[in-house]
Formats: sequence, C-alpha cells, structure tokens
Amino acid sequence: MKAAVIGIDADDTLWHSETLFSVTHERFAELLADHADPDELGRRMYETERRNLRLFGYGAKGFTLSMIETALEVTDGQLPGAHVQAILDLGKALLDHPVNLLDGVRGAIEALADRRLVLVTKGDLFHQESKVAGSGLGELFERIEIVSEKDEATYRKVVANLGIEPEQFLMVGNALRSDVLPVVAIGGRAVHVPYEVDWAHEVVPDGDLPTERWWRLDSLAGLPALLEQIER
Amino acid sequence: MKAAVIGIDADDTLWHSETLFSVTHERFAELLADHADPDELGRRMYETERRNLRLFGYGAKGFTLSMIETALEVTDGQLPGAHVQAILDLGKALLDHPVNLLDGVRGAIEALADRRLVLVTKGDLFHQESKVAGSGLGELFERIEIVSEKDEATYRKVVANLGIEPEQFLMVGNALRSDVLPVVAIGGRAVHVPYEVDWAHEVVPDGDLPTERWWRLDSLAGLPALLEQIER
Repeated sequence: MKAAVIGIDADDTLWHSETLFSVTHERFAELLADHADPDELGRRMYETERRNLRLFGYGAKGFTLSMIETALEVTDGQLPGAHVQAILDLGKALLDHPVNLLDGVRGAIEALADRRLVLVTKGDLFHQESKVAGSGLGELFERIEIVSEKDEATYRKVVANLGIEPEQFLMVGNALRSDVLPVVAIGGRAVHVPYEVDWAHEVVPDGDLPTERWWRLDSLAGLPALLEQIER
Repeated sequence: MKAAVIGIDADDTLWHSETLFSVTHERFAELLADHADPDELGRRMYETERRNLRLFGYGAKGFTLSMIETALEVTDGQLPGAHVQAILDLGKALLDHPVNLLDGVRGAIEALADRRLVLVTKGDLFHQESKVAGSGLGELFERIEIVSEKDEATYRKVVANLGIEPEQFLMVGNALRSDVLPVVAIGGRAVHVPYEVDWAHEVVPDGDLPTERWWRLDSLAGLPALLEQIER
C-alpha cells in the first residue's frame, strides 16, 4: 500500500547535528581539562542534561545552559568568567552553524517531490525553523511539525491533523526510539536510517525491536527505491 | 458575522508571564548592584537580547543565556561562579514557575467551550506546552499553534491550516504588534486585552493602529459579551 504521507525526521536524518554536538563536547572537555578528565566530564554532563530535561527539553540552548551548570560543578563553583564566555560562544556557534545536508538527501527528497512530505522534528522551534530555512528543502515539505516529544500520543495527533489513518503514514528517521518504535506501535510503517553517531538517550536493545512494518537503510538516498519495493 | 475560529494568545493573555520576567530582572539587578545601576543593566540586557534574538528567539532559556552574557559584560568578565549559578537558578525558577491564570480567564474560556478555540503562542515549544498542561485549559482548545514569529505570513499559514478564510478568524491577545496588527492586516478581526506590564519590543505608536476590525477589552472576562455584540 502506498503511504498517503511520508514523515521525515530532520536532525541527523536530513542534516548533520549530533556530530556538531560531539565537536562542541570535545571543545568543552578541552576547556575544562584542568578540572575533569573527558570521560568524567561526559558523565557529569549527561547527568546534568538528564536532570534538566524536564525543564529545558531538547535543543542547543538547553545544552548550553547544561554545559555551564556542569562546568560550575566540576570547578566547585570556581569557574573563570572567560570560561563562561567560551561556553556561551560554543553554544552560539552551534545555533549559528550552517546546515550541512547528509549525502544523498537532496536527491532523495527531490525524487519524492510528488509525494506528501511532512517534516516531523523534535527540539527547539526557533532553531529548527532556521535550519529548515537554511537547508533549502523547506519548499518540498507540505508542513513542518515541530513536536516536544516523539511518542505514540504525538504521532497519533500528527496523523489525525493530517486527516489520515496511522496505516497510511510512513516515518523515516535515524532514531529507533523516536522515529520507528512509536510509529510502528500505532499501526504505521517506518524506515530507520542510522546516523554515524548514536545518541546515548536513544539506544534500544534488539529484543525490544518490532518484528514487522519497518525497514533499515544505510542512506536516505535509498528511500525512493525502497518505497517502490514496499509500496507495490 | 460569527468567527469560525477564535485564536487566543497565551503569555500575558491567559496567564502571567511578563511580571515573572520583571521579578527576575529585579533579582538580576540586585545580584549585579555592585557593577551596574539597574537602569544601565536594563539597557545592556535589552541590547543583549536584541542582538541574540536572531539566534535564540523568544523564551526563558534564551533570556537566561542573555542574562549571563550581560553579567559578563558589566563585570568585565570577572563574574564570580556563585553569580553564574544564581543566574542559572533564576532561569530555572522562571521555567519551573506554576502557571497563574489572569483574573476571569477560566470563566471566559469555559463560556466559549462550544466555539473552536485555538491557542496561538510565540516562544519556546517545550516551555509553552508545559504551561498549557499546567493551566488546566488544554482540553478546551482544539489545537495549540506554537509559532516562532507572529507576523502576517504566520497568521496566513495558521488560518489556512484551519481550513478557513482570514475573515472567519478572530484573534485575542495582549500584544498589539503580534496579536492585533497582522491579523487585521490579512483581513481578520482582533481583540486587544492589554496586560498590566508593557513589553518594550511590542509598543506601537497610535498613528500605526488600524481604524477598524479590532476592539479593546480591560479583561478577558468581557470576551463572551463582546463577541455577542460584534457577531450579531
């Protein structure tokens, strides 16, 4: 069956994001090298982010605030002003970074120009809209759904807003937990396109994977061909 | 003519927001009293926010990052770690603050339960959704449109997504520039309910006000009666 609407994730599916966060992490670790070894700093940062998720949600602004908080922790509050400024600058560089599309993305999306495409993305509204604008792909999407969580309830709402049934929806993205599991659970289909860097919050044990209605691709470039196959 | 859909702004229309930011501003000024007088700090903070708007958009997380940046500026980078922590805590308190509805709001919204109500709000998606949940009013709204700018293009999109014409849309909010002017400009109607504190970014000279299709109320409590009058 042909999907009525194809949902596509943004960060790490259309363009690089996690690699930018990784580079930022490295710079952050160099900055605090005198106070914590990189692994320890990584653990503390992960804890800070987890603790702040309820208040900050996802995105580069919350990430920057969590870096500052973690830096205060590992320096016992003796964080020099120049370091605070350096962390602010790292955060701004993340927000201001040009959008780099993943290989094969432009061709794949353009090949699907006759389909109803919807961008479904988590994170900070303002930053996501900037990235969509910077990607040059905005025109090819019928709409942009920026959601605060990618769970079953959210996908039910997205699908209802599109005026279709879950069975008519196919979601494409790099995150099993956010783009595949909840969509398959509500009766839709999904395509997993793993990104080069895994995000610790998103790892799923193999035993928890659904047994049908989802596929895996090495690159978004393979999407048009896969759709031809599975929609016959 | 009866409006098909009533759009309602959130911050400072349904619940207090600017007063919380004002209190935060005061605490921020006390914290830096040794380095800048409150007026000077206010000017510097306004400049920082304006400069960062392109990257941060609206909302409490960007506001917190701008406070830290301004504090670094007025202390020539000699900002003690304890002050950074205090500013982080101010920002978290803003994000974690319980939702306080304005007087008469619950009654007015409940009186309009048989109308199609849509929340149209600017700012941080994650924080706005938390506030909608905390308000207890979420169920009374058909949908929540969180937008990054409230301009004519945005309202055209919102109205199109609702499947109606601009003439069938009526917007209610405290901000002339965001809730009234663009809606009237695209052919809709608007009700201005001023909040007790004006926001410097939103002030509009009287000469720029439209001459028809908008009304002013002292309180949202008067909305059901006004609608009865103007929709006859």
